[in-house]
Amino acid sequence: MEIRPRLLWPVETEFLFSSALFPEALIANDPDFQHEDLNFLSRSQRYDQAIRKSALMVMKLREYGIADPDEVYMFKSLVHRGRPEPLDLHLGMFLPTLLTQATPEQQDRFFMPAWNLEIIGTYAQTEMGHGSHLRGLETTATYDPATQEFILNSPTVTSIKWWPGGLGKTANHAIVLAQLYTQGQCKGLHAFIVPIRQLGTHEPLPGITVGDIGPKFGYDEVDNGYLKMDNFRIPRENMLMKYAQVEPDGTYVKPLSDKLTYGTMVFIRAYIVGESARALSRSCTIAIRYSAVRHQSELRAGEPEPQVLDYQTQQYKLFPLLAAAYAFHFVGTYIKDTYRRISGDIIEGDLSELPELHALTAGLKAFTTWIANAGIEECRMACGGHGYSRCSSLPDIYVTFTPTCTYEGENTVMMLQTARFLIKSYMQVGSGQRVTGTVSYLNDLPRQHIQPQHVAARPATVLINDPVSLVEAYKARATWLVESAAKNLQAELNHRKNKDDAWNVTSVDLVRATDAHCHYVVVKIFTAKLSEISNAAVRAVLTDLCLLYALHGISKNPGDFLQAGILTNTQVNQVNQRVKELLAIIRPNAVALVDAFDYSDGYLGSVLGRYDGNVYETMFEWAKKSPLNQTEVHESFHKHLKPIMSKL
Amino acid sequence: MEIRPRLLWPVETEFLFSSALFPEALIANDPDFQHEDLNFLSRSQRYDQAIRKSALMVMKLREYGIADPDEVYMFKSLVHRGRPEPLDLHLGMFLPTLLTQATPEQQDRFFMPAWNLEIIGTYAQTEMGHGSHLRGLETTATYDPATQEFILNSPTVTSIKWWPGGLGKTANHAIVLAQLYTQGQCKGLHAFIVPIRQLGTHEPLPGITVGDIGPKFGYDEVDNGYLKMDNFRIPRENMLMKYAQVEPDGTYVKPLSDKLTYGTMVFIRAYIVGESARALSRSCTIAIRYSAVRHQSELRAGEPEPQVLDYQTQQYKLFPLLAAAYAFHFVGTYIKDTYRRISGDIIEGDLSELPELHALTAGLKAFTTWIANAGIEECRMACGGHGYSRCSSLPDIYVTFTPTCTYEGENTVMMLQTARFLIKSYMQVGSGQRVTGTVSYLNDLPRQHIQPQHVAARPATVLINDPVSLVEAYKARATWLVESAAKNLQAELNHRKNKDDAWNVTSVDLVRATDAHCHYVVVKIFTAKLSEISNAAVRAVLTDLCLLYALHGISKNPGDFLQAGILTNTQVNQVNQRVKELLAIIRPNAVALVDAFDYSDGYLGSVLGRYDGNVYETMFEWAKKSPLNQTEVHESFHKHLKPIMSKL
Repeated sequence: MEIRPRLLWPVETEFLFSSALFPEALIANDPDFQHEDLNFLSRSQRYDQAIRKSALMVMKLREYGIADPDEVYMFKSLVHRGRPEPLDLHLGMFLPTLLTQATPEQQDRFFMPAWNLEIIGTYAQTEMGHGSHLRGLETTATYDPATQEFILNSPTVTSIKWWPGGLGKTANHAIVLAQLYTQGQCKGLHAFIVPIRQLGTHEPLPGITVGDIGPKFGYDEVDNGYLKMDNFRIPRENMLMKYAQVEPDGTYVKPLSDKLTYGTMVFIRAYIVGESARALSRSCTIAIRYSAVRHQSELRAGEPEPQVLDYQTQQYKLFPLLAAAYAFHFVGTYIKDTYRRISGDIIEGDLSELPELHALTAGLKAFTTWIANAGIEECRMACGGHGYSRCSSLPDIYVTFTPTCTYEGENTVMMLQTARFLIKSYMQVGSGQRVTGTVSYLNDLPRQHIQPQHVAARPATVLINDPVSLVEAYKARATWLVESAAKNLQAELNHRKNKDDAWNVTSVDLVRATDAHCHYVVVKIFTAKLSEISNAAVRAVLTDLCLLYALHGISKNPGDFLQAGILTNTQVNQVNQRVKELLAIIRPNAVALVDAFDYSDGYLGSVLGRYDGNVYETMFEWAKKSPLNQTEVHESFHKHLKPIMSKL
Repeated sequence: MEIRPRLLWPVETEFLFSSALFPEALIANDPDFQHEDLNFLSRSQRYDQAIRKSALMVMKLREYGIADPDEVYMFKSLVHRGRPEPLDLHLGMFLPTLLTQATPEQQDRFFMPAWNLEIIGTYAQTEMGHGSHLRGLETTATYDPATQEFILNSPTVTSIKWWPGGLGKTANHAIVLAQLYTQGQCKGLHAFIVPIRQLGTHEPLPGITVGDIGPKFGYDEVDNGYLKMDNFRIPRENMLMKYAQVEPDGTYVKPLSDKLTYGTMVFIRAYIVGESARALSRSCTIAIRYSAVRHQSELRAGEPEPQVLDYQTQQYKLFPLLAAAYAFHFVGTYIKDTYRRISGDIIEGDLSELPELHALTAGLKAFTTWIANAGIEECRMACGGHGYSRCSSLPDIYVTFTPTCTYEGENTVMMLQTARFLIKSYMQVGSGQRVTGTVSYLNDLPRQHIQPQHVAARPATVLINDPVSLVEAYKARATWLVESAAKNLQAELNHRKNKDDAWNVTSVDLVRATDAHCHYVVVKIFTAKLSEISNAAVRAVLTDLCLLYALHGISKNPGDFLQAGILTNTQVNQVNQRVKELLAIIRPNAVALVDAFDYSDGYLGSVLGRYDGNVYETMFEWAKKSPLNQTEVHESFHKHLKPIMSKL
């Protein structure tokens, strides 16, 4: 194992990454939370273990008096080592929804039983036929004033609720999103508390068909489920009525505003940006540590085999991802802080920043999850054959993370939502208004252009060793691409009558513009962070990483910078050269930079990513425990091979 | 389900894709080859099922008199539906190695017992500590003239053989690659036939430690294994001695040439290019069919939900991959034909084309597997939430395919091998020689350049609607990047003394140049194929696909074409516009284009990719069979949840 240049890493980085609100050892050393290696368990066993730990966790949370959402999240994350578990939706959606959308009377009825795990809830929104497009949901809740009940139905196969975590086997209640019908009219989507299993026996109630949706790409511990309802009746009081209401006679009372439902979505997407940072930093930790342990081939004829981390191609795979992991960490923190600030404003009644926050989180959720998603696989494949072994933990990190590209807003849909905001802002500037926040660069657009190439916002000369100058270059690129997309959209509008068609046939450009906008925001936030770091040595290392992040992004998209006239041919060549130089500069600090993420071996769960580098012996010990090795001779030999050997 | 414009697809495409040397129904309807859904089985059960089918398969091959390697491969592929199985290395490596490297006496001793499955073999090359770098292998075979035996040892933990398929539980023999020591000298790597389990009992032999390496990312059916040998003795006659020999007294006799071992590697890499086409075409079939079934959201306000395939962003994800699947299919065929032709030459003693064939297959193996690998995941994520379900088959296609990026030559290592050939060819041209084959474009390089940007090979004007003109553009790009890499390499050589260091710090450029070279070859082969298609309607559709392939590649790498002066800013904009137009043009034929791959529902094994489009009902039926649904109430409720409910 190579010597780690620890001196570079004072308290400051501990502050950056410390996630422990209470000692990790509290859980790591608790015998109740020990478990067998999940890799050796069947799905049913994995589910069983997860339920065992989650049930215990609820007990211990109470025992330790932990109720703050952040602390609950941290506790849960340590107990389940960052993995999803069957109570995720109970804790993360059912309880919070009760708090925000239930009346005080409903809270009295449901909250404490749910907190005490008598009621185990889930949140049933998506159906087999509809995900992103909520208005298309088909489940109906028809009010019957005669009995003062809602009659819930899944009228088609496609209307069967599908995917909610914990719905299959765990939950006995679900918050169900359904189209509300009352007095013969559809009033749109509303939320209902629906009991689905008998308390005590846990058997499904009559009229309820519920089960597990079957094995998936990962998420083995979670019983994502289906729910079909046939004329299933619930009392009127089970509709969540803090905002909209149905009165006993069936009269519908509108909610005052629906903007507030924005809030939860924004919060979850902001959280997902942090997940991108965590998944990518774990993967980089494993791949970079292993690349320092692994020796292979020859760099110089006749000399010993070098660490694979000394190969430029290996550095080129891993260091830009390391830089992205740091960048996303800072972006995650920034969004969380912004969310808190704007939430405060919203409580004060100021909704002015909500559209931008919504656009920013949607775009950054998509931007960061796509990069982290591909990055995890890049890290895995950078570990050679052993990256394919479950003992590397990398396959698991991937299958656990990849759904973030789809859930809480499919990424392409998210990019296009942000694009709508960008185009709207561009149009506002065009009509003489000023825009604020991350899109304020659009204010610098001159009113008239002859060609999209001639954008005035471009910096005079880009200094490729100055992050601040690179922020300007990314800003100029975003301006150019937003403007190009807007002009293409306008051209399509001029050709066609229908504005929806025009939007559709420009959507590739719109996604590209959003991508450039998000890229700019990330470079800007990373660069801004540098000035907050007081320790000069740390600042120097992180400045190199920030430069690598920005320059690597240019070297992967030189066409934009050339076409927009931001960089010259010569400068692009210099950028490519500088990227290679930065790889060599970062190399001596690479292991320290991943150590600074401070993942314990237990949390990381990776033989390749062990802190002590004792990879090979541990791998051999791990393999011996493979279930196929329980007997020297597998039963299939006697069943299938031996009979044939004697026949042939 | 949308109407399929079948008329477009006459016999010609059947010819293009027909892979059935004998009727698929022979196997599809054989009750012995039916099986439970693999998704619902444990790994041990999956291994057991695979062994059962493989054993039966060997019986039936004999029954039907099938012995031709191509037919055996096809039969195997249908029995196991394109999945790996425990006898893969027995059939694909052990038997062929006996044929090519064993003496007649050894063939007599081993071949028929192996053909009859009394001997089940594997090929044990990689070790825990060494993959790509064969010279680094540590296993030793020391000749003892006193007993005329080789003593096999695994001297370190890292020397334990690791990964060979079928080694863990299935094989009773292995061809072991080991460093040969005789008369006190190391003679390098040689192959030995090593019995590892007792015939009859299948128990490991004394001195042999063998087992399964544990669960992986996919390959559940295969017992990839480890093998540790401690002073394990085998007779002198078990060294494969067709070429090199050790005489009874220990005298070592050198092989005449080692070039011939090239052949197998080249063949397997050529085969992997075909695998890229197959994996990508299966994924495109599933994603495109499902995108025609799935309706979602609104394109035009107030109108019914459109097929998701009508969204430009969805087309932009899938159609370039569809084009790549066709391209790789043609490339796979081309390489296989080239391999056959050159194999003929080799038998005639003409090795002149071998270096190019080696470079071409290495580069194309890496180029196509990387693109297919990312493309499968793109297809999966284009299916929204349901792409995560195992019933989509896409997770399985991915985990089955992704190892091709690493095995038979790690992709980056492959790219750099091809780069060596490109640089060598470039240097030859520089010294006045002419080069032939796919690198012949380098002959057009003028001897002196002032700037890398000014390459004479560039076409005068690129016609963006003419595939032949685009081939020239890709050629010019490859020329420019090979020359740039060569010049960067030379500049580093001028700065440093060590040529290995110079190579390493230029390797990012070298990989980029190889990528451009391979991209050129693919565009060239696809374009050449068009002129062979006699049916005008088919040719027109495939010309659109070919154009999309070439133009999409430019739109993703515009910087190269701009920097090299091949395209102007205006042309790049036209390319981007033309890509969007082609998406709309290809849309009506998209489903027919995947139907033409002609995968049966049984082979595809995907609920989303069903030919009849009956996705949702089938998914519900599939989910009900999930093992977690065997009981209405999972045992974990009684074990873990109920006790806690009563306590809290």
